[in-house]
Amino acid sequence: MSERNPTACLLVIGNEVLSGRTQDANINYIARRLGEIGMPLREVRVIPDVAESIIDTVNEVRAKFDHVFTTGGIGPTHDDITSECVAAAFGVPWEKHPQAWQKMEASYRPGEFNAARQRMATMPRGATLIENAVSAAPGFTIGNVHVMAGVPRVMQAMMDVLVPTLKGGPPIASRAAHVLGLPEGVIAEGLGQIQARFPAVDIGSYPFYRPTGNGVAIVAKGPDAAAAEAAIVEVTDLISSLGKMPIPGEPAL
Amino acid sequence: MSERNPTACLLVIGNEVLSGRTQDANINYIARRLGEIGMPLREVRVIPDVAESIIDTVNEVRAKFDHVFTTGGIGPTHDDITSECVAAAFGVPWEKHPQAWQKMEASYRPGEFNAARQRMATMPRGATLIENAVSAAPGFTIGNVHVMAGVPRVMQAMMDVLVPTLKGGPPIASRAAHVLGLPEGVIAEGLGQIQARFPAVDIGSYPFYRPTGNGVAIVAKGPDAAAAEAAIVEVTDLISSLGKMPIPGEPAL
Repeated sequence: MSERNPTACLLVIGNEVLSGRTQDANINYIARRLGEIGMPLREVRVIPDVAESIIDTVNEVRAKFDHVFTTGGIGPTHDDITSECVAAAFGVPWEKHPQAWQKMEASYRPGEFNAARQRMATMPRGATLIENAVSAAPGFTIGNVHVMAGVPRVMQAMMDVLVPTLKGGPPIASRAAHVLGLPEGVIAEGLGQIQARFPAVDIGSYPFYRPTGNGVAIVAKGPDAAAAEAAIVEVTDLISSLGKMPIPGEPAL
Repeated sequence: MSERNPTACLLVIGNEVLSGRTQDANINYIARRLGEIGMPLREVRVIPDVAESIIDTVNEVRAKFDHVFTTGGIGPTHDDITSECVAAAFGVPWEKHPQAWQKMEASYRPGEFNAARQRMATMPRGATLIENAVSAAPGFTIGNVHVMAGVPRVMQAMMDVLVPTLKGGPPIASRAAHVLGLPEGVIAEGLGQIQARFPAVDIGSYPFYRPTGNGVAIVAKGPDAAAAEAAIVEVTDLISSLGKMPIPGEPAL
């Protein structure tokens, strides 16, 4: 990974993922969107709706990574405590955000912008809004922390607005090859030698088990596309030398 | 959560989840299996195949939680470094495990139990094996850390063997109701009052957006099933008082 690539951490906030009620659908989307702008996701934490956990974790990871993204806990109900916890983490008041308040108030009929909904327009002082095309309730950015909804289609609408405002790094090139019927244990030694010859490329080996056949996919990633390509050429030569047919790219799903 | 419920943390180890190449399929399975034995999953971390990250994280979370489960990084290739990092975290030698070695050697034809595969029979001193019905390569437990494969069907086979050996706590009762056409912002105030009356019950509010209709699911969880049930009865009364029809249980997928 180049020094110039800013790093990202994602906090998935919500008891529902930890209890197994809900299958997370946000990690993969955010990982891919950030990868596209050269801002590799370096860690994900799934944490409960517990104030101390949220506050401590936000403070730990915002010091450790260039950007922190959070999903979940910004709705109107009692278990939505992310926004006030982020304010506490930054040591700033949690207060009415005039722009969010005005926008949300206008989106409800008279009398329907009740206390619960007003909480969604209450934010850490200094927050800038992450407007979005799906929900009247915005997310927000404070410092290097970007606070988004947990509902996937709302989170995705927020990412659509947020990502173009972020400064990423050089794109991470990815090249791949795969092979059927060759166990990882047979290719491992040669693969380790290729990795040693390409220290600036991350070479990953991923076995797969598909109805169409088992095999292994080799993925080479790095900021230097030519080096990733050269590593994959060596991988295909290795596969050929083991008497198998290398297939360019990732296996089809 | 009762004091008697041991806590769990999951480490998902692998660049492929962080890069977005792979959609994690293990968090949800492990969350549900642990929930069944009254061992709530309290945190998940997804971390890269980087030795320092693995060693530091293992040491942090094994001190913080009763049990730690890891997935990924125990195959034969150069990027599979979980086992040696767990040994380093515990400060014990990483050495040939006689039982694993014997079992794996017997599973290959003469000459095929090569150096790469021998790495899979190399473990922290003192590890006990997590045998499994799918793969010749076992996982292992050392202290309160349970090291498993990342391939979902192998991980699941390891959980099948491991879970019955773990001492959980009282089961966490879960009761639910849902309603169509009632926004969270309308139910929020009454729901907060119910939560305040049932401090030992965790009440979660989860909006859903389905082709069959939008609505909100309310889930009450806790070691006291009667209290969870009583909380949900109040939730259904609240929904009725708002002029809507409460529907027992979770919404169908």
